[in-house]
Amino acid sequence: MSAKIIDGNKIAADIRNEVSQKVVIINKTYKNSPGLAVVLIGSNPASLSYVKGKEKDCTDVGIVTKTFRLEENISEEEVLHLIEKLNNDNNYHGILTQLPFPNHLNERTIINSIHPLKDVDGIGIHNAGLLAIESPKFIPATPLGIQQMLLRSNIQIPGKHIVICGRSNLVGRPLSIILSQKTIGGNGTITLCHTGTSNLYKYSLQADILIAATGQPRTITSAMVKPGSTIIDVGINRVEDPSKKNGYRLIGDVDFESVKDIAGNITPVPGGVGPMTRAMLLENTIKAYEFQINEE
Amino acid sequence: MSAKIIDGNKIAADIRNEVSQKVVIINKTYKNSPGLAVVLIGSNPASLSYVKGKEKDCTDVGIVTKTFRLEENISEEEVLHLIEKLNNDNNYHGILTQLPFPNHLNERTIINSIHPLKDVDGIGIHNAGLLAIESPKFIPATPLGIQQMLLRSNIQIPGKHIVICGRSNLVGRPLSIILSQKTIGGNGTITLCHTGTSNLYKYSLQADILIAATGQPRTITSAMVKPGSTIIDVGINRVEDPSKKNGYRLIGDVDFESVKDIAGNITPVPGGVGPMTRAMLLENTIKAYEFQINEE
Repeated sequence: MSAKIIDGNKIAADIRNEVSQKVVIINKTYKNSPGLAVVLIGSNPASLSYVKGKEKDCTDVGIVTKTFRLEENISEEEVLHLIEKLNNDNNYHGILTQLPFPNHLNERTIINSIHPLKDVDGIGIHNAGLLAIESPKFIPATPLGIQQMLLRSNIQIPGKHIVICGRSNLVGRPLSIILSQKTIGGNGTITLCHTGTSNLYKYSLQADILIAATGQPRTITSAMVKPGSTIIDVGINRVEDPSKKNGYRLIGDVDFESVKDIAGNITPVPGGVGPMTRAMLLENTIKAYEFQINEE
Repeated sequence: MSAKIIDGNKIAADIRNEVSQKVVIINKTYKNSPGLAVVLIGSNPASLSYVKGKEKDCTDVGIVTKTFRLEENISEEEVLHLIEKLNNDNNYHGILTQLPFPNHLNERTIINSIHPLKDVDGIGIHNAGLLAIESPKFIPATPLGIQQMLLRSNIQIPGKHIVICGRSNLVGRPLSIILSQKTIGGNGTITLCHTGTSNLYKYSLQADILIAATGQPRTITSAMVKPGSTIIDVGINRVEDPSKKNGYRLIGDVDFESVKDIAGNITPVPGGVGPMTRAMLLENTIKAYEFQINEE
């Protein structure tokens, strides 16, 4: 039997539709639009491509967006100055800094300089703290997208054993928090695995929901998966593929071809978690708008 | 075979000695002393007793302390005013608000008003955020004390399966973070269980280190424990005992008498985690002093 494919593109499209409708209401009610400022430093090709995608997503749903492109060798002071300006600019309700930054810049200093109510990536200290104490304002887009995928696919979370592979600040850690808190979309029993885990099989084989965010292609093989379980693949890895025009294709952290015969549900790569992450950024931008309107 | 008893009183005494020595050096170097301000609202008997204990601990190691006692019906504004004054008072390097507060006060507003560099309990938003992103300044005293107990008892954490029962903001949640981060005293594989967990046995029986912070007496019985494992009991529960002068005695969240025959190491109640929590508050006050000296 083959697993049910969880269609991230379809769920993300539903969320974008909902966001569009919220934008229409905002337009009518307040006579303006939610705005997202994107700060892009340097010319990393992957970053450029992500930012283009974000611009298109925003435009499609009616969110006003502008990308502020800064030179690779810009000083930290100048970046902080721009963010300060954007913090005070009522046209932009969300501010997103495209990572990674060039090495001479302190990522933390810059991220923490974003006003907590505009931190749509949810990665500043303030929002990380709110999340940890169970009063989140902004949850990082990937964990939030995964939670929405599970909820909208009617996959039960409460009481289930959820094994997360990867403890990053952007994915594994916040995911382990939101899925274990006593909230809708939470109340799961979480095991957090990482590079220091001995015998990953022991844990992965127990998982009702297995979330792979290892950053390594095909870490999760069919021998590691409990029959009928749900597999969420966060990985986006480029592997060479001479048959493709651009010379590569994208694969996940899960060995999709073998695992799909054992799992009950599985997300594909591409077309799984990726589009959900993009959609949740739009949702967070609407949230930012609402926080700021309510503050006035 | 009976488990080795982890003597919290002994380890806490070692830590207090270390703190005393640090205070002597501070006295000599800076011609002043670390100070801790305790804010106590109302007259809850348990709170009064805890605060007395803290005063004695401070005095014993040379930390200057003062308890600011406020009336049960004090307004939030007045509490915030006092904390603002203490934030700006160079005699106090740490500020601790004894919980719980009377119901009319917003706990979060008050806790978050403590300056992050004086938040020796480590429970304000800022310190919770720093901890979540793996750059902690202050870690809450109970999780920190448990980590120290394990380290100083030569119980290995990296690669071990650590099952934590309880997800509170003061114990289970921060503990799950510090024991899984890639640091000394971390790198364990953590399963976080809670009231929403179905079949706690399934998880507890796998634990190399089992940490009980359920707030319920004798939740962990001998049938739930893996032979030879380490059992850390965070619970402090009063049960009636007519044979005692005060009519009660303290027991933990673990059924000590039966579990000690199966476990490899176990903490008693009282005399286990409790004294460690008290000792780590002193350690955090020294840390606060050092942060503030370095800021000047």
